[in-house]
Order: sequence, then structure tokens, then C-alpha cells
Amino acid sequence: MSDVDRLNALRAAMAKEDLKAMLVTHLPDVRWLCGFSGSNAVLAVTAKKAVMFTDGRYTTQAKQEVRGARVVIAKKSALKEACALLEREAKHAGYDAAHTTVGALDEMRAAVSGKVRRSFFAAVRKPVVAELRMVKDAGELRLMEKAAALGDRVFSAVLPHIESGVPETEIAASVEFFARSMGAEGMSFETIVASGDRSALPHGKASSRKTPRNGFITLDFGVILNGYCSDMTRTVSVGRLSSRERAAYDAVLEAQRAGVLAVKPGATCAGVDEAARNVLRKAGLAKYFTHSTGHGVGLEIHEAPRLAAGQTQELKPGMVVTVEPGIYIAGKFGIRIEDMVAVTECGNRVLTNSPKALIEL
Amino acid sequence: MSDVDRLNALRAAMAKEDLKAMLVTHLPDVRWLCGFSGSNAVLAVTAKKAVMFTDGRYTTQAKQEVRGARVVIAKKSALKEACALLEREAKHAGYDAAHTTVGALDEMRAAVSGKVRRSFFAAVRKPVVAELRMVKDAGELRLMEKAAALGDRVFSAVLPHIESGVPETEIAASVEFFARSMGAEGMSFETIVASGDRSALPHGKASSRKTPRNGFITLDFGVILNGYCSDMTRTVSVGRLSSRERAAYDAVLEAQRAGVLAVKPGATCAGVDEAARNVLRKAGLAKYFTHSTGHGVGLEIHEAPRLAAGQTQELKPGMVVTVEPGIYIAGKFGIRIEDMVAVTECGNRVLTNSPKALIEL
Repeated sequence: MSDVDRLNALRAAMAKEDLKAMLVTHLPDVRWLCGFSGSNAVLAVTAKKAVMFTDGRYTTQAKQEVRGARVVIAKKSALKEACALLEREAKHAGYDAAHTTVGALDEMRAAVSGKVRRSFFAAVRKPVVAELRMVKDAGELRLMEKAAALGDRVFSAVLPHIESGVPETEIAASVEFFARSMGAEGMSFETIVASGDRSALPHGKASSRKTPRNGFITLDFGVILNGYCSDMTRTVSVGRLSSRERAAYDAVLEAQRAGVLAVKPGATCAGVDEAARNVLRKAGLAKYFTHSTGHGVGLEIHEAPRLAAGQTQELKPGMVVTVEPGIYIAGKFGIRIEDMVAVTECGNRVLTNSPKALIEL
Repeated sequence: MSDVDRLNALRAAMAKEDLKAMLVTHLPDVRWLCGFSGSNAVLAVTAKKAVMFTDGRYTTQAKQEVRGARVVIAKKSALKEACALLEREAKHAGYDAAHTTVGALDEMRAAVSGKVRRSFFAAVRKPVVAELRMVKDAGELRLMEKAAALGDRVFSAVLPHIESGVPETEIAASVEFFARSMGAEGMSFETIVASGDRSALPHGKASSRKTPRNGFITLDFGVILNGYCSDMTRTVSVGRLSSRERAAYDAVLEAQRAGVLAVKPGATCAGVDEAARNVLRKAGLAKYFTHSTGHGVGLEIHEAPRLAAGQTQELKPGMVVTVEPGIYIAGKFGIRIEDMVAVTECGNRVLTNSPKALIEL
């Protein structure tokens, strides 16, 4: 899809919601719709117009990046100027309730004339742009495949640097250095390196702790390439593992494979979660699986859909989700294995291809 | 200040706003108030109680980190459980209008009983916690000094790796590798490396472009240490510079020094901006200075106050701000120089101490 097609897809979605105009303020939405990657942007969309407002820091960059929308460099407030334009062009405008703060709504209202102040803006509670972004087009899938492949190369490059007695932050430094050296624009999120009993922290950011003599090391990291995020987790081991630890690893791996197998068009998000969770239930480990199975990924590291119990959303070709079951036994150890998986017409394609059989270093 | 003192400072500020209870959802605010650094947390504060809600991923981490507040691991939604507690404890509760989305407000209202649904929550438009956080205590200043000093060490380490013909991303990789190796938990923001005519992009994230034979290279980066952000910018040169480029560098440096000199208790934020801007005005370069002079920094890279025209906020001892004038001549070159400056009882202390005289590599 070109950027103009995306704007027209938004217009079609707006029409379904009976919206003649819409204010888009969430930056990844703006980027998806018109290509701009700066840190200040508001996009005003009507049936005929699309105008992006930013500030003087981005004059050159906006010219280079924006497609499908006119660019206005706001003198004072991009948000207020966008609202003023919408008041000239439309009778009402929708805004994204999930990404508009009550304070921003105050500002928006202050930017339109007194007589329409209370009525001009309508909260849009349906995640209109997020739903469009769930399904990636061919160009996006190529970029996400590249980002995932870069993650794989980083993982391979880091493995020789992992051993007992190395501070977690040093491993994180290697992850990020290889990522950057191989062309990543940045990391999708703070790199997680959690070793020994810290591997039982699902979100254990790298600390100054040294990796243990015997035990697991969980690496969870993502790179950003061309704006798209990758996300992968592998748990490796150093020294000797107990038979309980080995059995647990096997169970998590089996759960992860079951989750991946369940990813296909028409499956529900809850169904994928259940497929993974059920394996851990049978192994008596379900109580240690304390989070949901996965999430969409794209321009943001966490996007729709959510792969969790109760989520009735059906998977569609073009969606890219993570499958990442894990178990966390406080004070003992933790294990998580995660792939990025693209839904295809007839099943799925796993975008991350690092080995999942236990790597013992 | 201990965390309990911070909670009591919040209670005193709440009393001034006639608030008996408050819901704190902005994560850096939660961290500042009770020490928790996870990615999901809601803090409910009343005159007597402080309860922090998070989820099962953070059971262990919350125990380790949280001080001054009771921890509840929410079964479904930390936000909703916090609201339910507030309804039991108080007649009304304030929420932060600047960090609460319209969608979150919907959820909050749905979590309290029908009869008080419309009236229970009151928007707090004054940035109550942000104002408390503006003034850093002695412990915070020590941490910020350490973060800034780490930034300086990274800059020194990177200099030998900068030369003509190196891709900007490779320089960024070095910045981030040294930062991590020296103990940084992460970077405060995406590292900016903008060389040659790209130095005229104020927010030129590192690209695959190679540094030029002759010209400027702007490095703007920050590290995170113990949760606190550093922020510094230096513009260095390779090869030969034109006399126009040299004169411009001198003007920006003079402007930056004038800005730093203006930082003292009682000065207004607008006054510091004007002090820097006026130097560039006299040099005929003010039209190329397209952003404000600086911003507060702390647990977040951009905090209150803003050093910009019209900002009447007075500087107080304990505030930490950046002073970062720059000029950007599209298609030609750009220059920015930035320090972190702490306001002291009798003036200021510059926390970043890398040389500012032009470094020619």
C-alpha cells in the first residue's frame, strides 16, 4: 500500500464510523499514514485533505519524508493549528480516545471557536488506525522480515560473548553494539538479560549482576530497522542444569511450538494463548506462566492484537504476532522462548529463525 | 528525601488543591514516589494510604523496589483495582489530566459504582507531581551528576572513533557500546549523529550516511544510570572548515555560555532562553535558532521546566536543566552545544564537563 492508499483506507474506516474528519496524534499512526518519523506531528484528515503539522526542527525532514499529505510548519502549536484547520474544513472531528489525554483535549477545545467548543470533537473509542495497522502489507512484511533477520544475526554474534561470570549489562552491551553495527536504528525496548535466579523476573532488564556458574540466561531484545520493530527471546544455559530445569525447558519449548502451530487465519487470539498454555498446564507449570502468550508487533513493539485469554479477535493474513510463553519460578529460575510469526494465507511463517533447542554454553 | 517524604510532599500538594485522594498513573511519577521501575503500575494515594498496583510479571521486582507503599498484584487490571480501592477510601479522587487518556478515564469510571461514575474522578490540570519532581533532592543530584559524568566519559571514549568516511550509525554504535560497557542501563533517547549537511537537522538520528571530508558532526546523546537521564551535545569537526562555519561555531558557543551564565535562582526560564538567543541575534543567526533553549531533565529526558520564550517559571536550587542553543542552515550545516546545568543556592553547577572549544578531528 502506498501512503495515499493508507490515507484512503483510513477514510473508508472513518466513513464506517460516520466521521467526516479526524485528528491523528499518535506518532506511529502518523508515520504509518504519511511516512513522517519525527517526534512532533499531528495529522488532520478529511475526505479530501490530509495536512500534517509539525515544528521548525523538522522542516527539512518533513519535506524528505511526508507523502500523501501537505506539510505545515506550525508557528506555535502543531496540535492547535491542526484543530483550527479542521474547524474550517468540517463540522465535527473525531479523535483517538486511547491516545488523547484529557489535557490535550482541553487544548484542542481551546483551539476552536467558543460556539462549537463542547461539541466539535468526538471521542473515537474504536482503535481505527490500530486496526488498519494490524494487517501488514507486502512492503511492511518485507521490512519486518529484515528486522527479524537482523535480530537473528545479532543473537548469533552475541552467543560467543556469553559465559559464566560476565555482567548482564556487558551482554546487553554486546547485543546493542552488534545491532547498531549491523545497521539497526535502535533497539525496540530496553534489552532484557536476566540470568540465574533473575531469569525468574519476566522483565529483568540487564543488571550489574554476573551470570551464574550454572543456570539459565534469558535474552529478550529487539532491533528497529526502517522504523519496524523486531522482538525475540531465547533462553540459553551455562554450566550444569538440574533435571527439573531441563524438563521445564522442554515444556516451555513444546508450549511455544504449540502456540506457533496455532497461528493461522481464522484462529482466535485466545486460541493461540490456550494452545501454548495447555501444554504448560499438562506439565504442571501453568501457574508459573504469569503473562499472556503474545502481542502484535510492527512500527510499535506492542500493537494489536493481544494473544491472551478472552481475546476473540481472529488472526488474518498479514498480521505479525509474537508467541512467547514463559515460566518464572521465584528465587529459582525462569525460561522464555519467543518468535515473531507472520500469519499467511494458509498458515504462518516464522520470521525469527534462531535455534530453539537448548543452547548450552 | 526518602520515598515516604515524597509521598508526604505529594499529600501536602494535594491538600493545597483540595484533593483527598489521587490516582498516579504516569510511570516516572510512580517511580519517583515509591521507587518502582516496572512498566505497569498505578499508585493510589490518600491521606493515610499509598497502594501500588502492578501485575504478576512484577511480583518479585515490586517487593524488591517499592518503598512507602503497599504492593498489590492485580488479577486483571491494575488501573481498575486502584480505582476500586479509591472508591472504598475516598469520596473523590484526582487524576493527572496531562497523562490520562480519554480512554483510560472511561475505564476508570467503569471501575467505580454507577452512582458516582460521573462525579468520582476530578481532572487535575496542575502538574502536581511534575512540579515536585522539578526540584531534585541531594540524592537525586548525586545520581544526575554520576549520569552526566558517565556521558562525559562516553564522549571521550568515542572521539578517537570519529573521522571522515565513517557511517553515522557506526559512531552511534560506539556511543552506545561505551555507554553500556561503562554501566549505563540504556540511552535516554535515540542517539543523534548528524554530519555534514545533515547536521542542519536538529533531530538527525544517526543514518547510514558517511561523515564528510570537511564539516561538522553533531553528537547528541544521553545515558540512563540508576533511572536518571543525562543529556549532552557536542559538535566536532573533521577536515577544513570555512570561515563562516568557524564564526558560526563561535557564536553558538558564546550563546551557550551566556545561557549557562543566566541559570541561577530567581532567573526565569524565558530569561535564560533570551540570554542565549540574544547572542545569536547580535550575530545575525537568530533565525537559524529554531527551537527553545532547554528543558528540565531527571527521571525523564524531557521534564518541566521549559526554557523558552514566555515561560515565567522561576529557577530554583535543585532544578536541573539543559542549555542547548543551536543553529541549522538547511542544506549547509548545523551546530548545537548542550550542557546539563544544576541550579544551586548561589548560581549553578554544570554537570557535563566535556570541552566546548571546537574539537577538530
